[in-house]
Amino acid sequence: MMTNKIAAVVFDAYGTLFDVHSVTATCERLFPGKGTTMSQLWRSKQLEYTWLRALMGRYADFNCVTEDSLRYVCNALGLAYSRQALDELMLAYRRLQPFDDARETLAALQGKVQLAILSNGAPQMLNAVVAHNGLGQYFSAVLSVDPVRTFKPSPDVYRIAVDKLGVAREKIAFVSSNGWDAAGAKAFGLTVFWVNRAGAPLDELGVQPDAVLKSLAEIPALIV
Amino acid sequence: MMTNKIAAVVFDAYGTLFDVHSVTATCERLFPGKGTTMSQLWRSKQLEYTWLRALMGRYADFNCVTEDSLRYVCNALGLAYSRQALDELMLAYRRLQPFDDARETLAALQGKVQLAILSNGAPQMLNAVVAHNGLGQYFSAVLSVDPVRTFKPSPDVYRIAVDKLGVAREKIAFVSSNGWDAAGAKAFGLTVFWVNRAGAPLDELGVQPDAVLKSLAEIPALIV
Repeated sequence: MMTNKIAAVVFDAYGTLFDVHSVTATCERLFPGKGTTMSQLWRSKQLEYTWLRALMGRYADFNCVTEDSLRYVCNALGLAYSRQALDELMLAYRRLQPFDDARETLAALQGKVQLAILSNGAPQMLNAVVAHNGLGQYFSAVLSVDPVRTFKPSPDVYRIAVDKLGVAREKIAFVSSNGWDAAGAKAFGLTVFWVNRAGAPLDELGVQPDAVLKSLAEIPALIV
Repeated sequence: MMTNKIAAVVFDAYGTLFDVHSVTATCERLFPGKGTTMSQLWRSKQLEYTWLRALMGRYADFNCVTEDSLRYVCNALGLAYSRQALDELMLAYRRLQPFDDARETLAALQGKVQLAILSNGAPQMLNAVVAHNGLGQYFSAVLSVDPVRTFKPSPDVYRIAVDKLGVAREKIAFVSSNGWDAAGAKAFGLTVFWVNRAGAPLDELGVQPDAVLKSLAEIPALIV
């Protein structure tokens, strides 16, 4: 694999650097016995709503979509909720925990290549989760889909990285744990590392990532 | 509700007229003990792939997406499959059973308004399932997304109905059991009846259908 030409490593945020299921504890505290189910359904509905809104041409930012999907989940599970409960859960989303391998990987890469985030997240929520975890020092850019008013895997999103970093698409290594995001980035023409922590099957979308990793910690060895 | 102006009733096919889970029996025969899980996951991956491919700008027709999602499901469930098994399952998709209330509703509406189908289905598979069930006589048009090379809920899809039927958008009653499809049609401006057989919560996509029905059989009374 020709990765010695990589000039920038661009990370997906939710599910890749940050564990979206770290909200489970807050879900469980507010709705005992429902934490895991809520967290799983919340994530799948959140993604579904990004795709649907993008296709409908009715963009609303990720903060809005995340709260909309949370309300759907509460309704679907028959959970009576207060405004305060929603606020606590939305706050938990701004305080997601990074995966164990995130910080050391960023530290190992810093100074060798440009580092950035490219995420569906609205700027405010994205900056919040980065700051909460003290990771801001590692990134030269934290890029949101918000200016182009659509969501991944639209090519308009991946183009943001090329435009903002000033690096040719194949010289950008895009890192995502979301198989469909990896597919979208590859279809656009980025070099793609799919971090397949769970050993999931490859999505059948007609494209393949350049490498499949088990952990973020494998990245530094690929960027020579 | 102003429905006395309705000039055409346009039906979604998969999940609305035809029960996508009527493939469960074939799944179960080929992979004993896995029929229900396979059918559920197949449907959800199939939809996901339509949304992702549409957003990626990499349209492949519904026949292709349906088989791709089937292969994903077999891989995800660890099921070893043959070409023959795939062919049998794809054939089952061309022989889906209509819901119990479909035929009588179409018969009751015929002659009062134009009747049509507007579906993600590729023309060949869509015509096959209509013909297999002897329902062709009821429809003045069986419309596929294929000419516009995208999928629901893109507004380009709902526009096909307006263009092909020559009826203003609000005079078309669009009928779907898929909440997200109902949302897409309403966002485009059609009159929308959401057939919510399962009593699901409304999707939080910022639009509401004109009516929520429990059965297709409620439609004739709404079209006066």
